[in-house]
Amino acid sequence: MTSSAPAPTAHTTAAAPTHERLLDAAAALFYREGVNVGIEALCRTAGVSKRSMYQLFTSKDEVLAASLDRAGSRYLGQLLPAPAADLPPREHIMRVFEHLESMSASPDYLGCPFLATAFELKNPEHPASVIARRYKDALTDFFREQARRGGAHDPDLLATQLTVIFDGSSARAMAQAQSLHGLATATATALLDAAGMS
Amino acid sequence: MTSSAPAPTAHTTAAAPTHERLLDAAAALFYREGVNVGIEALCRTAGVSKRSMYQLFTSKDEVLAASLDRAGSRYLGQLLPAPAADLPPREHIMRVFEHLESMSASPDYLGCPFLATAFELKNPEHPASVIARRYKDALTDFFREQARRGGAHDPDLLATQLTVIFDGSSARAMAQAQSLHGLATATATALLDAAGMS
Repeated sequence: MTSSAPAPTAHTTAAAPTHERLLDAAAALFYREGVNVGIEALCRTAGVSKRSMYQLFTSKDEVLAASLDRAGSRYLGQLLPAPAADLPPREHIMRVFEHLESMSASPDYLGCPFLATAFELKNPEHPASVIARRYKDALTDFFREQARRGGAHDPDLLATQLTVIFDGSSARAMAQAQSLHGLATATATALLDAAGMS
Repeated sequence: MTSSAPAPTAHTTAAAPTHERLLDAAAALFYREGVNVGIEALCRTAGVSKRSMYQLFTSKDEVLAASLDRAGSRYLGQLLPAPAADLPPREHIMRVFEHLESMSASPDYLGCPFLATAFELKNPEHPASVIARRYKDALTDFFREQARRGGAHDPDLLATQLTVIFDGSSARAMAQAQSLHGLATATATALLDAAGMS
């Protein structure tokens, strides 16, 4: 997964801890409070001066995109089982939904971070919206690969449908402020059955 | 559907056109630009003085909730076929998804307004989040009633699953900035079939 953060230079390499601290604080803050968090609050939370921030990034929009990319890479790494895992394709897919069920039970869960960013920005051209789309596509690609391996009738359709279930379930957990209680896994199961997926 | 707007008094009744103009402008502006739009921009767009606004509403949060309620009532009225329509229950449900497909084709479509508000506010106790939940529940109630009439195996589960498909599809159209091209109707159809719904 390529990063939208600026390529490291002699300067930014030396400043790597600041860079990482800023992005991690930014990702957590944007997720919890939304993309309209100001530069002041961002720097205060990260313990980074504004001057340092502007030495690393040209704008808040760039911080937003880079922080979503960094957090997203970690998030997707947790969400998708390792490809080497010796699991039937259907189990691979179900693991993702079980993970979603488990995330939705946390009181801090505010829905899929990619979807939240896209909903808040309302601008598909924003660099962070582009990052959000890239990660959603990566999830669909994962589903498609497993659907193919599992002999689904129409792997492209099933992969997109599973992404819809993932997003709709995640949005529901957020909007209802409650755990999914098996809704995501039950719905994914119904679609896997309907697609003739072994 | 009850309104969260203040009950009309002699004063607000006389000011009804201002009240309605403000709420309509607010709903359009919040949907297009997000819930962080300021009071100044709101009043300017509505052509209403701040003084008039504060005579009608005590806070921006109250305007936000009331405008979502007003717009939501109209939106749900368009989305749900009239109960008197002589349609089989399955067709009643499919009409909702066909309407979603058609909305998603508009370049101005930014996803379900209730979901957008909930994602942006990140606070399930906010009066507008409560309104958003109420309308999502109304959609689920509609699906449940049709699922019962159509003899679905588990009307409660099917109704919630259809709401998940609705929300996931609407979120996808927004995040991908493209029409659904039959994805919502195909996924709803698969679930209706799986639920044994006639």
